[in-house]
Amino acid sequence: MPAPDADAIRAAAARIAPFTVATPLLSSPLLDARAGLRLLVKAESLQRTGSFKWRGAINALLSLDAAARQRGVVAFSSGNHAQGVAAAAQTLGIRAVVVMPADAPAIKAANTRAYGAEVVLYDRHTESREAIAERLAIERGAALIPPYDDARIVAGQASVGLELAAQARAMDVALDAVIVPCSGGGLLAGVALALHETSPRTKIYAAEPDGFDDMRRSLAAGVRITNDTGGQSLCDCLLAPIPGELPFAVARQHVAGSIVVSDGEICRAMAAAFADLKLVLEPGGAAGLAAALGGTLARGHQTIAVVASGGNVDRETFSAALRRSPA
Amino acid sequence: MPAPDADAIRAAAARIAPFTVATPLLSSPLLDARAGLRLLVKAESLQRTGSFKWRGAINALLSLDAAARQRGVVAFSSGNHAQGVAAAAQTLGIRAVVVMPADAPAIKAANTRAYGAEVVLYDRHTESREAIAERLAIERGAALIPPYDDARIVAGQASVGLELAAQARAMDVALDAVIVPCSGGGLLAGVALALHETSPRTKIYAAEPDGFDDMRRSLAAGVRITNDTGGQSLCDCLLAPIPGELPFAVARQHVAGSIVVSDGEICRAMAAAFADLKLVLEPGGAAGLAAALGGTLARGHQTIAVVASGGNVDRETFSAALRRSPA
Repeated sequence: MPAPDADAIRAAAARIAPFTVATPLLSSPLLDARAGLRLLVKAESLQRTGSFKWRGAINALLSLDAAARQRGVVAFSSGNHAQGVAAAAQTLGIRAVVVMPADAPAIKAANTRAYGAEVVLYDRHTESREAIAERLAIERGAALIPPYDDARIVAGQASVGLELAAQARAMDVALDAVIVPCSGGGLLAGVALALHETSPRTKIYAAEPDGFDDMRRSLAAGVRITNDTGGQSLCDCLLAPIPGELPFAVARQHVAGSIVVSDGEICRAMAAAFADLKLVLEPGGAAGLAAALGGTLARGHQTIAVVASGGNVDRETFSAALRRSPA
Repeated sequence: MPAPDADAIRAAAARIAPFTVATPLLSSPLLDARAGLRLLVKAESLQRTGSFKWRGAINALLSLDAAARQRGVVAFSSGNHAQGVAAAAQTLGIRAVVVMPADAPAIKAANTRAYGAEVVLYDRHTESREAIAERLAIERGAALIPPYDDARIVAGQASVGLELAAQARAMDVALDAVIVPCSGGGLLAGVALALHETSPRTKIYAAEPDGFDDMRRSLAAGVRITNDTGGQSLCDCLLAPIPGELPFAVARQHVAGSIVVSDGEICRAMAAAFADLKLVLEPGGAAGLAAALGGTLARGHQTIAVVASGGNVDRETFSAALRRSPA
C-alpha cells in the first residue's frame, strides 16, 4: 500500500474542505512562558466530532462509489475514529456499524450512537477488533474503513498539516518542529507528508504515552515493534498495539523521533490548555502539548507547533486532570 | 458620544486584524438536537486573552497617538477588559494600570498581572471603580480606556459581528437571530451595528443573568435603569449596574429584546459547550448559549448564532458547573 503522494493529499484537502472546520492555530504569551519557546497549537479538538478523525473518515467515505455507499461501512475504533465515521456516514446518508472497546469513554460510545451508527462492543483484552470488523464487513457486504492503515485516511489527516503550514506562513512564523500525538500513526504520517511538501525544514516528532511508545521503539529498531501488554495510560485514544504499516513506512522517512509523556505531564498539559487557550483536550489529544511543555525540544528550537488532536473526554476525567495538575 | 458608523467599524476591523484571532463559528448536530434548531457558536473564548474584550482594547490603544502611548493607560474592569487592556498594552509597549474588584476570579487578576499591568483592587460593594480610575488617570496623565461606553471600544467589538456575518454567509446560512451576552452592552452594541450593516434581517437579542437584567428593563422603559443591589450571579463578567449610555442608544435602535437566564441554565450551557464543542466557557460567556438552549426563540427561528464571549474561569468553578449540570 503506497503512501498518498502530494497530489492525493491536495485532492483530499479540497474534497473534504466543504465539510470540515478550518481549525484555528492558537497561541498565548502565558503558554509561551510555560514552554520557554514560541508555541502554536492546532486546535483539532474543535473539528467536527471533536477530533481530527473526521478528516480521514469523511475523505474515505467521499472516495466510495455509489454502489459501495449503498452497502454501508464498518469501522473499528477506540472512539474518535468511531465518531468520525459515524458522523461522516450520517452526513452522506450511509449506514455505519462501529466496533468499539467496551471500556471506551462513555461520551465516545454515546456520541457514536447519537450520530446514528450501530455500535458493537468488544473486550479490548481478549478479542480482536480487526477480526470482528472484518467478519461484519463480509456478512453485510460493507466497506471496511480502517482507522489509520489506509491511504485515504492518511491523505485526509494530512489536511491538518497543510492547514497548519499555511497558517504558520500567514503568521510569518517559521516552524522548527511539529509534535503530533501518535497511536497507529495516521495523523503523524499525514502531517509528516504534508509538512515535507510545504515546509521541508520543519522536523516532525511523535508524542506517545509512557508504556505505549511502540513508534519510538519501532523507529529505533527499524522494524515495527508491539507494545508490552498490561500497560496503563490515561490516553485512551493512543493505545494502538503497534504502528500501522503505512504510517510506519512514512515515519521512517519523515519523522525525527518520538517523545514519551507521563500521565502527570498529560494532566498538566490539559490544565494549561484549559487556562491559557480555553480548550477542552482529552488526555491523548494533549500528548503533543505535554511533549512541548516537557522541554525536550526547548534547546535548539525556537518555534514549535503541536497538534491538539481531540477533546472527547468525560467530565469526571477532565475535572480530575485539572485537580491533579498544580495550579 | 455618537455610535461608530459603518466606516469606523470597518476601519477598526482592518486595524485590529493583524493582532486578532479570526475565531471559528462552530456547530454540532448534537448541540442542534439539544437546542431544537440550528445553532452556530462564535467562539470568542478562543480570542487572545480568552475573551472578545481584546478587540475593543487593542482598537482603542491602536487609536492613541504616540504622545498618549508614552503616558500610558488606565482601565477599570471586572476582569476580561482588564486582561484585554493589559495584553494589548504589552503588545504595543504601553504602561497599563487596571482597577479590578477584589473578588474577581483569581485567574483574571493573575493573568492581568502576567500581561505586565499594575493591578489596583477595590471593593465592588463600597467603592466606585470609575472614580478610582479617573483619579489614577489624572495623577499619571494616562488615557482612560473605559470598558464599554466608548466609540473605539464598541467599534472594536463590532468586528465580532462582521466576522460572524461573513462566516455565516460562507456557510450559506441565513441568520434569524444572534444572541449576545450583555453587561455594559459594548459587545451587544458592536454586534448589533455590524449585523445592521451586513445582515439587516437578523434580529439581535441580549442575554442577561437573573437579577442583572438592566438592559431588558431599560429597553422596556425606554430609559436606562439600574439593577437592584444585592443580586447574586455566577456570571462575574455580566454584573455592570446599568447599560452604558452609548450601548443603550444603539440597543434602543437595533436590539429586539433581552433574554434572562438563571445560574442553572448557565451551568447546563457550560456543560453543553464542553461536551458538544470542546469549548471552555466562563459563566457569563455562556449566557448567549444558555438563552438559545432555553428555547425562548425556538418558535419562529430556524437558525440562531450566539456569541460565546469568554472563557476565563477558575478550574473549581468550571468543574462545579459541569457537576451541577445533568449529564
